[in-house]
Amino acid sequence: MNITLTSGKTIAIKPGTSIMESLKRTGMYLNSSCGSKGTCGKCKIIIKTGQVSIKSTMKLTQHEINAGYALACQAYPSEDTIIDIPKESILTVEGKIVTGKSKDLQALLRSTGAEINPLTERFILQLPQPTLNDNISDLERLKRELFSKGLGCLRVPFRFMTNLAQTVRKNNWEITLCTIHSEDCYEITNIFPGSQKIPQFGIAVDIGTTTIVVYLIDLINGNLVDVASIYNSQIRFGDDVITRIVNASEHKELKNLHKAVISDINILLSLLRKTYHISIDSIDCVVIAGNTTMTHFFLGLDPSSIREEPYIPTANVFPISHAGELGIKVNPNIPVYAFPCVASYMGGDIVSGVLATRLHEKEKLSIFIDIGTNGEIVLGNSEWLVAAACSAGPCFEGSGIKHGMRATDGAIEDVRINPATYDVDIKVIGDDTQPMGICGSGMIDAAAEMFMTGILDQKGKLQKEVSNRVRVGEDGLEFVIHYGEGKDIVLTEPDIENIIRAKAAIYAGFTILLKEVGFTFDDVHKVYIAGGFGKFLDIEKAIIIGMLPELPKEKFEYMGNTSITGAYLCILSQRLRGEAEEISRKMTYIELSVSKSFMDEYVSGLFIPHTNVDAFPSVKELMKK
Amino acid sequence: MNITLTSGKTIAIKPGTSIMESLKRTGMYLNSSCGSKGTCGKCKIIIKTGQVSIKSTMKLTQHEINAGYALACQAYPSEDTIIDIPKESILTVEGKIVTGKSKDLQALLRSTGAEINPLTERFILQLPQPTLNDNISDLERLKRELFSKGLGCLRVPFRFMTNLAQTVRKNNWEITLCTIHSEDCYEITNIFPGSQKIPQFGIAVDIGTTTIVVYLIDLINGNLVDVASIYNSQIRFGDDVITRIVNASEHKELKNLHKAVISDINILLSLLRKTYHISIDSIDCVVIAGNTTMTHFFLGLDPSSIREEPYIPTANVFPISHAGELGIKVNPNIPVYAFPCVASYMGGDIVSGVLATRLHEKEKLSIFIDIGTNGEIVLGNSEWLVAAACSAGPCFEGSGIKHGMRATDGAIEDVRINPATYDVDIKVIGDDTQPMGICGSGMIDAAAEMFMTGILDQKGKLQKEVSNRVRVGEDGLEFVIHYGEGKDIVLTEPDIENIIRAKAAIYAGFTILLKEVGFTFDDVHKVYIAGGFGKFLDIEKAIIIGMLPELPKEKFEYMGNTSITGAYLCILSQRLRGEAEEISRKMTYIELSVSKSFMDEYVSGLFIPHTNVDAFPSVKELMKK
Repeated sequence: MNITLTSGKTIAIKPGTSIMESLKRTGMYLNSSCGSKGTCGKCKIIIKTGQVSIKSTMKLTQHEINAGYALACQAYPSEDTIIDIPKESILTVEGKIVTGKSKDLQALLRSTGAEINPLTERFILQLPQPTLNDNISDLERLKRELFSKGLGCLRVPFRFMTNLAQTVRKNNWEITLCTIHSEDCYEITNIFPGSQKIPQFGIAVDIGTTTIVVYLIDLINGNLVDVASIYNSQIRFGDDVITRIVNASEHKELKNLHKAVISDINILLSLLRKTYHISIDSIDCVVIAGNTTMTHFFLGLDPSSIREEPYIPTANVFPISHAGELGIKVNPNIPVYAFPCVASYMGGDIVSGVLATRLHEKEKLSIFIDIGTNGEIVLGNSEWLVAAACSAGPCFEGSGIKHGMRATDGAIEDVRINPATYDVDIKVIGDDTQPMGICGSGMIDAAAEMFMTGILDQKGKLQKEVSNRVRVGEDGLEFVIHYGEGKDIVLTEPDIENIIRAKAAIYAGFTILLKEVGFTFDDVHKVYIAGGFGKFLDIEKAIIIGMLPELPKEKFEYMGNTSITGAYLCILSQRLRGEAEEISRKMTYIELSVSKSFMDEYVSGLFIPHTNVDAFPSVKELMKK
Repeated sequence: MNITLTSGKTIAIKPGTSIMESLKRTGMYLNSSCGSKGTCGKCKIIIKTGQVSIKSTMKLTQHEINAGYALACQAYPSEDTIIDIPKESILTVEGKIVTGKSKDLQALLRSTGAEINPLTERFILQLPQPTLNDNISDLERLKRELFSKGLGCLRVPFRFMTNLAQTVRKNNWEITLCTIHSEDCYEITNIFPGSQKIPQFGIAVDIGTTTIVVYLIDLINGNLVDVASIYNSQIRFGDDVITRIVNASEHKELKNLHKAVISDINILLSLLRKTYHISIDSIDCVVIAGNTTMTHFFLGLDPSSIREEPYIPTANVFPISHAGELGIKVNPNIPVYAFPCVASYMGGDIVSGVLATRLHEKEKLSIFIDIGTNGEIVLGNSEWLVAAACSAGPCFEGSGIKHGMRATDGAIEDVRINPATYDVDIKVIGDDTQPMGICGSGMIDAAAEMFMTGILDQKGKLQKEVSNRVRVGEDGLEFVIHYGEGKDIVLTEPDIENIIRAKAAIYAGFTILLKEVGFTFDDVHKVYIAGGFGKFLDIEKAIIIGMLPELPKEKFEYMGNTSITGAYLCILSQRLRGEAEEISRKMTYIELSVSKSFMDEYVSGLFIPHTNVDAFPSVKELMKK
């Protein structure tokens, strides 16, 4: 039984396998943020001919069903089938759009003063051929050569012994050593015959609860080659870390949670390797940053105790593992470095974020906030660092929002509403790209604009009478941001409720953390903001909806995904890797969830901009108008 | 289809499987020195009833065939079968006879001045239970506890992380750490919940080309619990190291050679564990000593270049591996330490032997010779060590000798011939044990006595007219050492040729090594002799046949199997492990095989005692009588 794509490609399919799964097996990956449960609607395909059994059409409009649309994860062909896959359903690398990002990252690396000195290094050695008068063993010959070059000692894990004799002889005693510097000694991470100095790539991974991002980095020049991202397929075990831990510990799903994240990373690696024709032996190391639970799942460690008082992780600082131990599909010997964490609810992604913002070097008091599924806030300077977490939820990453999506090609990232006509002006990520959904920055823009134009009230209710773009949809009232062919892009009232809950949690986090250490917003010199909002976050709009405190605009700096930025820095500089370890040791975690004042503050934030409008004088001013 | 033993036990058997193999699968091991090729005759069984297809009866007399004897490795039942297994065919542990050996070893350890400080150590830690105020991670808690006890740093390989959370919680935060000291840090080799200080056993292994010996050692008190030994089943790939290397490199048998030695060790471990009811988690470490080729095969390293000029091993000093990497059936995490080697033809067994003889501490010039399949000789003192190899062959270990056997229960170890009656007086290893064969010391005794009584001439020919114990057997003339029920024990003329070739090689080795460094036998203060001859080696008899030089008897010391003795010392003392590494660095290997004077000397030794009888004045005197 076959599926034929309208592009011409034909794929064999087994009965009882979904189209999603069948495509995956041949290396074609579709978007999904629900883990193939049929609830996100991101894997739409169009069935042209063939009998296909459809399990659920939940996320499809009648119009779409009539036009032959189906969800690939819910579609089970029972005969030869021809399908068309819309561009927006296909998982791709980011491509050209990262050129600017690469320049910014290289500039950031330079600004730290660190030289490119990657986690792993390659040495080309031309060993003298053995003779009867120079008949030391292969291993001693290797060590002697490295020592004679002034590079010091060499540790050789046993698994490299097996092929050593063949490897050194294969290319006339010339060999390439891949090494990692550990405890004053180089440790072999790979050996190749001959000279294979370049190419050398590193893989930096940000493992978010909702989104996984992979950077392909050229270790020689620090160039960011490309980026690929995917929804974390652990989502099928729960949206948040707590539900996933419950599944791991009470339903014995730890192995499956581990496999899910590894499989996601393997999909992204496979996309990147295919796009750039990268041999498996050109990838030398992997650095990952994630929250403590994600890091545990990634490493296959039991996170049960993270959930139960007194909230203890297996480790905050992790021994280096190898790709083969974890199932990452690169050379099994290459080292995998996981960013150190601070506590059960303050992870390596935040340590990585602080490294990227350089907050730990600033003399004046600064705040760093990373708005992901969990919102984490760090306050401090070069002397001290305190941190707290506030659960914001994944809506700004597109999850739980009807037409939400990550900030990739096709995402609406900027929304303006004409207060007279209520016409909507949008900006979409990517050249000449049709809008496919809305990302975090677009949501904040939209909510602020809708509020300022009266489409939305302070409680977050849509005002049907204000604009005819407000209409009744399948989830109640919704506002049409974009009228599309076949599909309009809307924000629904439940979407807006999600956005308000998220922004309330974030603002409460700021307020209470400052209060805990005896400071106010006025003492804060800088606010660094991270998150997957897109390229730009409109600070003013974020203040209007009450997500950010009302401070002078120049105090804010939007940094994008700092977790992956820190991973980029760490993979390229051993000095910065040392700094990351220093940051994790220095940071003190404060538990906010037990604080009654946090709950009070959160409830007060469930209005736009806030129950206490006086804290937002300029918004108050605007509202009067 | 079943095999029933006369003892009552019934074993299921698959068609096409030999009785040998079927017994092995149920954990019953029979002797074999030919690797199941049907050429050693050591796995005899008696078939009582049942149709059995017999592939070869080569090693059976017509008398035996008539009595129902068969070789288990050549017997393929085609229906239910009842068999009887003679005691001498069954592989067993040494049992009670090692009590004396254990006392000697403990005395030797004490005499070195080293305290018992084994390769691996266990620590019991009671960790403080975590609280909200003491919420560091499990791993940090472990490290903090060890550090607070003044034990310093702890390195945790990644593979121990996976179960750490469960392990520390299982027994109320009490845990047992198994560690090995490496580079100023303890490295975890195992973790158990609760207190499991004892028992702790270590496994010392001597991997000989012909014989493998395993010691089960109590690491707490240094007691040798028991010994088990087996013929190296690599024998089916060749009797000597060169043939085996050819098989490994040209016939791609490396993996099978590796598996053969691991399987042999696993058989012995299984016997020992069953006999002493030892849990797999009570075995903490393995130390092996073997020649360079055997060490390579054991570790799975390609030995091809050992055979080809300029004779280069993969390594002489080996990184520590884990049992799981090698397939040894103990806890997969426990460390396996291989004795350092010196060169392609001077291995860890000799380094271990020098450690056992303490030659490297003596002020006066001494010689150490290990008579195994390869004869290795070391000359030196506390200042310097030189070494050379002379290929003696495996006859003194029982291989290539019709009724040869290792020095275990049932072996004739002492032979006296009455010069008047030619009656033979024998001593057999083990209490009340029927003689089953003859071991190395018995062969030397027999050859010397036969020579002195005129049964054997100077060329090694049997004199039929001297005694009616000389008779014509299937291999030509043979001398009956023991008339047994059903089976006589004999030495044949080909056996004697083997013995003469071996002793000639050994004597030539002594002579030429001394000559190379400008010394004579008179300069030698002590001669330490090692080998699997049995408990005693009669030095005078060894001089009579011209194996040892004629020196005052008190200069000789017979040490037994020094390779395993050194492994015993090394597993119990970290200081002595350091000494072993020092010995391997200090020793200089001299290649004798290229020396013409060695061949001349060897040919001169193919007489009893030697072509140059003047070098053996007392033997010359005896011959006159």
